[in-house]
Amino acid sequence: MRLYAYWRSSASWRVRIALQLKGLDVTIVPVNLLHSEQKGEGHRARSPLGQVPVLELADGTQLTQSLAIVQWLDATHPEPPLVPVEPLAKARAWALAEVVNAGIQPLQNLSVLGAIDAMGGDRKEWGRQVIRDGLVGLQRLAEPHAGSFLVGDTVSVADLCLVPQLYNARRFGVALDDLSLLTEVEARCAALPAFQAAHPDRQPDATASRT
Amino acid sequence: MRLYAYWRSSASWRVRIALQLKGLDVTIVPVNLLHSEQKGEGHRARSPLGQVPVLELADGTQLTQSLAIVQWLDATHPEPPLVPVEPLAKARAWALAEVVNAGIQPLQNLSVLGAIDAMGGDRKEWGRQVIRDGLVGLQRLAEPHAGSFLVGDTVSVADLCLVPQLYNARRFGVALDDLSLLTEVEARCAALPAFQAAHPDRQPDATASRT
Repeated sequence: MRLYAYWRSSASWRVRIALQLKGLDVTIVPVNLLHSEQKGEGHRARSPLGQVPVLELADGTQLTQSLAIVQWLDATHPEPPLVPVEPLAKARAWALAEVVNAGIQPLQNLSVLGAIDAMGGDRKEWGRQVIRDGLVGLQRLAEPHAGSFLVGDTVSVADLCLVPQLYNARRFGVALDDLSLLTEVEARCAALPAFQAAHPDRQPDATASRT
Repeated sequence: MRLYAYWRSSASWRVRIALQLKGLDVTIVPVNLLHSEQKGEGHRARSPLGQVPVLELADGTQLTQSLAIVQWLDATHPEPPLVPVEPLAKARAWALAEVVNAGIQPLQNLSVLGAIDAMGGDRKEWGRQVIRDGLVGLQRLAEPHAGSFLVGDTVSVADLCLVPQLYNARRFGVALDDLSLLTEVEARCAALPAFQAAHPDRQPDATASRT
Protein backbone atom coordinates (compact mmCIF):
# COMPACT_ATOMS: atom_id res chain seq x y z
CA MET A 1 0.00 0.00 0.00
CA ARG A 2 0.98 3.61 -0.56
CA LEU A 3 -0.10 6.60 1.48
CA TYR A 4 -0.07 9.94 -0.30
CA ALA A 5 0.48 12.34 2.55
CA TYR A 6 2.02 15.57 3.82
CA TRP A 7 4.10 15.46 6.98
CA ARG A 8 2.15 18.15 8.84
CA SER A 9 -1.34 17.40 7.51
CA SER A 10 -3.55 16.40 10.46
CA ALA A 11 -5.60 14.02 8.36
CA SER A 12 -2.47 12.30 6.98
CA TRP A 13 -1.11 11.98 10.51
CA ARG A 14 -4.29 10.32 11.81
CA VAL A 15 -4.03 7.65 9.11
CA ARG A 16 -0.33 7.14 9.78
CA ILE A 17 -1.12 6.41 13.43
CA ALA A 18 -3.85 3.96 12.42
CA LEU A 19 -1.52 2.14 10.02
CA GLN A 20 1.18 1.93 12.69
CA LEU A 21 -1.25 0.62 15.31
CA LYS A 22 -2.43 -2.05 12.86
CA GLY A 23 1.18 -2.98 12.13
CA LEU A 24 0.81 -2.29 8.41
CA ASP A 25 3.76 -1.34 6.29
CA VAL A 26 3.09 1.32 3.67
CA THR A 27 5.17 3.45 1.35
CA ILE A 28 4.73 7.12 2.13
CA VAL A 29 4.51 9.29 -1.01
CA PRO A 30 4.87 12.96 -0.06
CA VAL A 31 2.49 15.55 -1.57
CA ASN A 32 3.76 19.06 -0.92
CA LEU A 33 0.84 21.22 0.18
CA LEU A 34 2.99 24.36 0.29
CA HIS A 35 3.70 23.91 -3.43
CA SER A 36 -0.01 23.17 -4.08
CA GLU A 37 0.81 19.71 -5.45
CA GLN A 38 -2.49 18.47 -4.06
CA LYS A 39 -4.38 20.74 -6.47
CA GLY A 40 -2.48 19.50 -9.58
CA GLU A 41 -4.12 17.15 -12.05
CA GLY A 42 -1.85 14.29 -10.98
CA HIS A 43 -3.12 14.31 -7.44
CA ARG A 44 -6.69 15.26 -8.37
CA ALA A 45 -6.91 12.00 -10.29
CA ARG A 46 -6.40 10.33 -6.91
CA SER A 47 -8.40 12.82 -4.83
CA PRO A 48 -11.02 14.82 -6.77
CA LEU A 49 -11.05 17.38 -3.98
CA GLY A 50 -7.31 17.81 -4.08
CA GLN A 51 -6.66 16.65 -0.54
CA VAL A 52 -4.42 14.35 1.42
CA PRO A 53 -4.31 11.62 2.55
CA VAL A 54 -5.07 9.05 -0.13
CA LEU A 55 -4.50 5.40 0.68
CA GLU A 56 -3.76 3.35 -2.43
CA LEU A 57 -4.34 -0.37 -2.05
CA ALA A 58 -2.27 -3.07 -3.75
CA ASP A 59 -4.85 -3.37 -6.55
CA GLY A 60 -4.81 0.37 -7.24
CA THR A 61 -8.04 1.22 -5.39
CA GLN A 62 -7.75 4.67 -3.86
CA LEU A 63 -9.42 5.68 -0.63
CA THR A 64 -9.88 9.27 0.57
CA GLN A 65 -10.97 11.03 3.77
CA SER A 66 -9.08 10.07 6.89
CA LEU A 67 -12.03 8.77 8.90
CA ALA A 68 -13.29 6.71 5.96
CA ILE A 69 -9.83 5.17 5.70
CA VAL A 70 -9.88 4.39 9.42
CA GLN A 71 -13.22 2.61 8.92
CA TRP A 72 -11.77 0.55 6.08
CA LEU A 73 -8.69 -0.34 8.13
CA ASP A 74 -10.85 -1.40 11.07
CA ALA A 75 -13.04 -3.55 8.82
CA THR A 76 -10.16 -5.27 7.05
CA HIS A 77 -7.54 -5.38 9.83
CA PRO A 78 -9.61 -5.62 13.02
CA GLU A 79 -6.77 -5.74 15.58
CA PRO A 80 -6.50 -3.55 17.52
CA PRO A 81 -9.96 -2.05 16.97
CA LEU A 82 -9.92 1.74 16.61
CA VAL A 83 -13.69 2.17 16.73
CA PRO A 84 -15.39 0.60 19.77
CA VAL A 85 -17.96 -2.08 18.98
CA GLU A 86 -20.39 -1.30 21.81
CA PRO A 87 -22.89 1.18 20.30
CA LEU A 88 -22.69 3.92 22.95
CA ALA A 89 -18.89 3.82 23.15
CA LYS A 90 -18.78 3.88 19.36
CA ALA A 91 -21.03 6.94 19.22
CA ARG A 92 -18.92 8.68 21.86
CA ALA A 93 -15.62 7.96 20.14
CA TRP A 94 -17.05 9.04 16.83
CA ALA A 95 -18.52 12.25 18.23
CA LEU A 96 -15.13 13.24 19.67
CA ALA A 97 -13.43 12.44 16.37
CA GLU A 98 -15.94 14.57 14.46
CA VAL A 99 -15.53 17.52 16.83
CA VAL A 100 -11.96 17.65 15.54
CA ASN A 101 -12.50 16.37 11.99
CA ALA A 102 -15.52 18.53 11.15
CA GLY A 103 -15.59 21.10 13.95
CA ILE A 104 -12.01 22.33 14.28
CA GLN A 105 -9.62 21.19 11.57
CA PRO A 106 -11.60 22.42 8.52
CA LEU A 107 -11.68 25.94 9.96
CA GLN A 108 -7.91 26.16 10.35
CA ASN A 109 -6.56 24.38 7.31
CA LEU A 110 -4.29 26.08 4.82
CA SER A 111 -6.97 26.98 2.28
CA VAL A 112 -9.20 28.71 4.83
CA LEU A 113 -6.25 30.57 6.33
CA GLY A 114 -5.38 31.80 2.85
CA ALA A 115 -8.93 33.08 2.40
CA ILE A 116 -8.78 34.85 5.78
CA ASP A 117 -5.57 36.57 4.63
CA ALA A 118 -7.24 37.64 1.39
CA MET A 119 -10.08 39.23 3.35
CA GLY A 120 -7.63 41.18 5.48
CA GLY A 121 -8.34 39.07 8.56
CA ASP A 122 -5.76 37.90 11.11
CA ARG A 123 -5.12 34.25 10.27
CA LYS A 124 -3.31 33.51 13.49
CA GLU A 125 -6.02 35.02 15.68
CA TRP A 126 -8.70 33.22 13.67
CA GLY A 127 -6.93 29.88 14.04
CA ARG A 128 -6.28 30.41 17.73
CA GLN A 129 -9.96 31.15 18.36
CA VAL A 130 -11.47 28.24 16.43
CA ILE A 131 -9.00 25.74 17.87
CA ARG A 132 -9.42 27.00 21.44
CA ASP A 133 -13.24 26.95 21.25
CA GLY A 134 -13.21 23.47 19.78
CA LEU A 135 -10.77 22.01 22.28
CA VAL A 136 -12.68 23.44 25.26
CA GLY A 137 -15.81 21.74 23.94
CA LEU A 138 -13.89 18.55 23.20
CA GLN A 139 -12.65 18.30 26.78
CA ARG A 140 -16.13 18.89 28.23
CA LEU A 141 -17.56 16.27 25.91
CA ALA A 142 -14.83 13.76 26.78
CA GLU A 143 -14.79 14.23 30.56
CA PRO A 144 -17.61 11.86 31.58
CA HIS A 145 -16.20 8.82 29.79
CA ALA A 146 -12.44 9.36 29.52
CA GLY A 147 -9.95 7.01 31.10
CA SER A 148 -6.31 6.69 30.13
CA PHE A 149 -7.46 7.72 26.67
CA LEU A 150 -10.38 9.83 25.42
CA VAL A 151 -12.85 6.95 25.57
CA GLY A 152 -11.99 4.60 28.38
CA ASP A 153 -8.62 2.92 28.62
CA THR A 154 -7.92 1.96 25.02
CA VAL A 155 -6.81 4.05 22.07
CA SER A 156 -9.64 4.94 19.69
CA VAL A 157 -10.22 7.03 16.60
CA ALA A 158 -10.80 9.97 18.95
CA ASP A 159 -7.16 9.87 20.12
CA LEU A 160 -5.97 9.71 16.51
CA CYS A 161 -7.72 13.02 15.94
CA LEU A 162 -6.67 14.63 19.23
CA VAL A 163 -2.90 14.35 18.85
CA PRO A 164 -2.46 16.23 15.55
CA GLN A 165 -4.96 18.88 16.68
CA LEU A 166 -2.97 19.63 19.83
CA TYR A 167 0.20 19.96 17.72
CA ASN A 168 -1.62 22.54 15.60
CA ALA A 169 -2.92 24.26 18.72
CA ARG A 170 0.64 24.89 19.89
CA ARG A 171 1.67 26.24 16.50
CA PHE A 172 -1.15 28.79 16.82
CA GLY A 173 -0.25 29.63 20.43
CA VAL A 174 -3.49 28.29 21.91
CA ALA A 175 -3.57 28.31 25.73
CA LEU A 176 -3.80 24.70 26.94
CA ASP A 177 -3.27 25.10 30.70
CA ASP A 178 -6.87 24.29 31.59
CA LEU A 179 -7.10 21.41 29.11
CA SER A 180 -5.14 18.89 31.14
CA LEU A 181 -7.44 15.99 30.34
CA LEU A 182 -6.49 16.45 26.69
CA THR A 183 -2.77 17.00 27.25
CA GLU A 184 -2.52 14.04 29.64
CA VAL A 185 -4.12 11.75 27.06
CA GLU A 186 -1.73 13.21 24.49
CA ALA A 187 1.24 12.35 26.73
CA ARG A 188 0.04 8.75 27.05
CA CYS A 189 -0.28 8.51 23.28
CA ALA A 190 3.18 10.01 22.80
CA ALA A 191 4.64 7.17 24.85
CA LEU A 192 3.39 4.57 22.36
CA PRO A 193 5.73 3.49 19.54
CA ALA A 194 2.94 3.73 16.92
CA PHE A 195 2.34 7.39 17.71
CA GLN A 196 6.07 8.06 17.75
CA ALA A 197 6.59 6.54 14.30
CA ALA A 198 3.68 8.54 12.87
CA HIS A 199 4.93 11.93 14.10
CA PRO A 200 5.51 14.56 11.39
CA ASP A 201 9.18 14.91 12.30
CA ARG A 202 9.73 11.26 11.39
CA GLN A 203 8.32 11.62 7.87
CA PRO A 204 10.42 11.67 4.67
CA ASP A 205 9.19 15.15 3.71
CA ALA A 206 9.76 16.76 7.12
CA THR A 207 11.70 20.00 6.93
CA ALA A 208 13.09 22.33 9.53
CA SER A 209 11.27 25.34 8.03
CA ARG A 210 8.38 26.96 9.86
CA THR A 211 5.25 27.14 7.74
CA MET B 1 -36.39 9.73 22.33
CA ARG B 2 -36.06 13.47 21.80
CA LEU B 3 -34.16 15.22 19.05
CA TYR B 4 -32.96 18.74 19.83
CA ALA B 5 -32.84 20.29 16.39
CA TYR B 6 -33.26 23.34 14.20
CA TRP B 7 -35.41 23.05 11.09
CA ARG B 8 -32.78 24.31 8.64
CA SER B 9 -29.68 22.83 10.30
CA SER B 10 -28.08 20.37 7.86
CA ALA B 11 -26.85 18.12 10.64
CA SER B 12 -30.30 18.01 12.29
CA TRP B 13 -31.85 17.20 8.94
CA ARG B 14 -29.49 14.26 8.31
CA VAL B 15 -30.50 12.71 11.63
CA ARG B 16 -34.20 13.30 10.96
CA ILE B 17 -33.87 11.37 7.70
CA ALA B 18 -32.08 8.53 9.48
CA LEU B 19 -34.76 8.35 12.18
CA GLN B 20 -37.51 8.32 9.55
CA LEU B 21 -35.80 5.60 7.52
CA LYS B 22 -35.46 3.48 10.67
CA GLY B 23 -39.13 4.08 11.47
CA LEU B 24 -38.34 5.61 14.86
CA ASP B 25 -40.71 8.04 16.48
CA VAL B 26 -39.04 10.94 18.27
CA THR B 27 -40.16 14.20 19.81
CA ILE B 28 -38.55 17.14 18.05
CA VAL B 29 -37.46 19.89 20.46
CA PRO B 30 -36.63 23.05 18.51
CA VAL B 31 -33.45 25.00 19.34
CA ASN B 32 -33.49 28.41 17.69
CA LEU B 33 -30.08 29.06 16.16
CA LEU B 34 -31.06 32.57 15.09
CA HIS B 35 -31.69 33.45 18.74
CA SER B 36 -28.42 31.71 19.74
CA GLU B 37 -30.28 29.26 21.98
CA GLN B 38 -27.65 26.64 21.16
CA LYS B 39 -25.00 28.73 22.94
CA GLY B 40 -27.03 29.13 26.17
CA GLU B 41 -26.16 27.15 29.28
CA GLY B 42 -29.30 25.04 28.95
CA HIS B 43 -28.29 23.64 25.60
CA ARG B 44 -24.56 23.57 26.39
CA ALA B 45 -25.36 21.08 29.16
CA ARG B 46 -26.56 18.82 26.36
CA SER B 47 -23.95 19.80 23.77
CA PRO B 48 -20.72 21.25 25.20
CA LEU B 49 -19.96 22.77 21.80
CA GLY B 50 -23.35 24.45 21.60
CA GLN B 51 -24.52 22.63 18.50
CA VAL B 52 -27.50 20.77 17.16
CA PRO B 53 -28.58 18.04 16.82
CA VAL B 54 -28.59 16.22 20.16
CA LEU B 55 -30.39 12.89 20.37
CA GLU B 56 -31.61 12.18 23.89
CA LEU B 57 -32.34 8.54 24.60
CA ALA B 58 -35.10 7.28 26.89
CA ASP B 59 -32.63 6.91 29.80
CA GLY B 60 -31.39 10.50 29.39
CA THR B 61 -28.16 9.65 27.54
CA GLN B 62 -27.36 12.41 25.10
CA LEU B 63 -25.59 11.86 21.78
CA THR B 64 -24.03 14.60 19.66
CA GLN B 65 -22.57 14.91 16.14
CA SER B 66 -24.83 13.81 13.33
CA LEU B 67 -22.59 11.08 11.91
CA ALA B 68 -21.95 9.64 15.36
CA ILE B 69 -25.72 9.49 15.89
CA VAL B 70 -26.12 7.72 12.54
CA GLN B 71 -23.55 5.14 13.68
CA TRP B 72 -25.47 4.58 16.91
CA LEU B 73 -28.75 4.23 15.04
CA ASP B 74 -27.23 1.74 12.62
CA ALA B 75 -25.78 -0.31 15.49
CA THR B 76 -28.98 -0.39 17.53
CA HIS B 77 -31.62 -0.39 14.78
CA PRO B 78 -29.93 -2.20 11.89
CA GLU B 79 -32.75 -2.05 9.32
CA PRO B 80 -32.35 -0.54 6.84
CA PRO B 81 -28.57 -0.21 7.11
CA LEU B 82 -27.33 3.31 6.39
CA VAL B 83 -23.64 2.40 6.34
CA PRO B 84 -22.71 -0.42 3.95
CA VAL B 85 -21.16 -3.49 5.60
CA GLU B 86 -18.76 -4.40 2.79
CA PRO B 87 -15.50 -2.59 3.66
CA LEU B 88 -14.89 -0.79 0.34
CA ALA B 89 -18.50 0.34 -0.02
CA LYS B 90 -18.40 1.48 3.59
CA ALA B 91 -15.25 3.52 2.98
CA ARG B 92 -16.77 5.06 -0.15
CA ALA B 93 -20.03 6.00 1.55
CA TRP B 94 -18.16 7.42 4.49
CA ALA B 95 -15.78 9.42 2.32
CA LEU B 96 -18.70 11.06 0.49
CA ALA B 97 -20.41 11.81 3.79
CA GLU B 98 -17.23 13.42 5.15
CA VAL B 99 -16.75 15.56 2.05
CA VAL B 100 -20.01 17.23 3.07
CA ASN B 101 -19.75 16.90 6.85
CA ALA B 102 -16.14 18.05 7.20
CA GLY B 103 -15.35 19.56 3.79
CA ILE B 104 -18.32 21.79 2.96
CA GLN B 105 -20.81 22.32 5.76
CA PRO B 106 -18.38 23.60 8.44
CA LEU B 107 -17.21 26.34 6.09
CA GLN B 108 -20.69 27.70 5.46
CA ASN B 109 -22.41 27.41 8.80
CA LEU B 110 -23.85 30.39 10.62
CA SER B 111 -20.90 31.01 12.93
CA VAL B 112 -18.36 31.11 10.10
CA LEU B 113 -20.59 33.35 8.01
CA GLY B 114 -20.82 35.72 10.97
CA ALA B 115 -17.03 35.82 11.21
CA ILE B 116 -16.76 36.52 7.47
CA ASP B 117 -19.14 39.45 7.94
CA ALA B 118 -17.05 40.75 10.83
CA MET B 119 -13.95 40.70 8.64
CA GLY B 120 -15.70 42.68 5.93
CA GLY B 121 -15.89 39.69 3.60
CA ASP B 122 -18.83 38.78 1.35
CA ARG B 123 -20.60 35.93 3.15
CA LYS B 124 -22.72 34.97 0.16
CA GLU B 125 -19.77 34.82 -2.23
CA TRP B 126 -17.76 32.86 0.36
CA GLY B 127 -20.56 30.36 0.85
CA ARG B 128 -21.16 30.02 -2.89
CA GLN B 129 -17.50 29.26 -3.51
CA VAL B 130 -16.95 26.67 -0.78
CA ILE B 131 -20.19 24.85 -1.59
CA ARG B 132 -19.55 24.85 -5.33
CA ASP B 133 -15.95 23.58 -4.95
CA GLY B 134 -17.07 20.87 -2.57
CA LEU B 135 -20.00 19.67 -4.68
CA VAL B 136 -17.87 19.49 -7.85
CA GLY B 137 -15.43 17.27 -5.95
CA LEU B 138 -18.26 15.26 -4.45
CA GLN B 139 -19.69 14.44 -7.86
CA ARG B 140 -16.28 13.41 -9.24
CA LEU B 141 -15.70 11.21 -6.22
CA ALA B 142 -19.17 9.62 -6.47
CA GLU B 143 -19.23 9.01 -10.24
CA PRO B 144 -17.42 5.64 -10.42
CA HIS B 145 -19.68 3.89 -7.92
CA ALA B 146 -23.02 5.72 -8.00
CA GLY B 147 -26.24 3.99 -8.98
CA SER B 148 -29.71 5.20 -8.13
CA PHE B 149 -28.11 6.71 -5.04
CA LEU B 150 -24.59 7.98 -4.30
CA VAL B 151 -23.24 4.51 -3.50
CA GLY B 152 -25.00 1.89 -5.61
CA ASP B 153 -28.74 1.45 -5.51
CA THR B 154 -29.54 1.83 -1.83
CA VAL B 155 -29.73 4.90 0.36
CA SER B 156 -26.66 5.43 2.53
CA VAL B 157 -25.25 7.97 4.93
CA ALA B 158 -23.84 9.77 1.88
CA ASP B 159 -27.35 10.57 0.60
CA LEU B 160 -28.34 11.83 4.06
CA CYS B 161 -25.55 14.39 3.76
CA LEU B 162 -26.17 15.27 0.11
CA VAL B 163 -29.79 16.38 0.35
CA PRO B 164 -29.41 19.15 2.98
CA GLN B 165 -26.22 20.37 1.29
CA LEU B 166 -28.00 20.84 -2.05
CA TYR B 167 -30.77 22.78 -0.28
CA ASN B 168 -28.09 25.09 1.12
CA ALA B 169 -26.45 25.33 -2.28
CA ARG B 170 -29.63 26.77 -3.76
CA ARG B 171 -29.97 29.27 -0.94
CA PHE B 172 -26.48 30.53 -1.81
CA GLY B 173 -27.23 30.58 -5.55
CA VAL B 174 -24.71 27.88 -6.44
CA ALA B 175 -24.81 26.80 -10.11
CA LEU B 176 -25.88 23.14 -10.25
CA ASP B 177 -26.43 22.62 -13.99
CA ASP B 178 -23.36 20.43 -14.44
CA LEU B 179 -23.98 18.46 -11.25
CA SER B 180 -26.78 16.30 -12.59
CA LEU B 181 -25.55 13.13 -10.89
CA LEU B 182 -26.11 14.89 -7.57
CA THR B 183 -29.45 16.47 -8.44
CA GLU B 184 -30.78 13.22 -9.92
CA VAL B 185 -29.93 11.35 -6.73
CA GLU B 186 -31.55 14.17 -4.79
CA ALA B 187 -34.75 13.78 -6.83
CA ARG B 188 -34.85 10.05 -6.09
CA CYS B 189 -34.44 10.79 -2.38
CA ALA B 190 -37.16 13.42 -2.50
CA ALA B 191 -39.61 10.79 -3.75
CA LEU B 192 -39.17 8.72 -0.57
CA PRO B 193 -41.59 9.34 2.33
CA ALA B 194 -38.76 9.34 4.90
CA PHE B 195 -37.00 12.21 3.14
CA GLN B 196 -40.30 14.06 2.74
CA ALA B 197 -41.12 13.83 6.44
CA ALA B 198 -37.64 15.04 7.40
CA HIS B 199 -37.74 18.18 5.21
CA PRO B 200 -37.26 21.50 7.04
CA ASP B 201 -40.64 22.79 5.89
CA ARG B 202 -42.34 19.94 7.76
CA GLN B 203 -40.71 20.77 11.11
CA PRO B 204 -42.52 22.41 14.05
CA ASP B 205 -40.15 25.41 14.06
CA ALA B 206 -40.33 26.08 10.31
CA THR B 207 -41.06 29.70 9.51
CA ALA B 208 -41.72 31.55 6.31
CA SER B 209 -38.94 34.08 7.03
CA ARG B 210 -35.76 34.06 5.00
CA THR B 211 -32.68 33.70 7.16
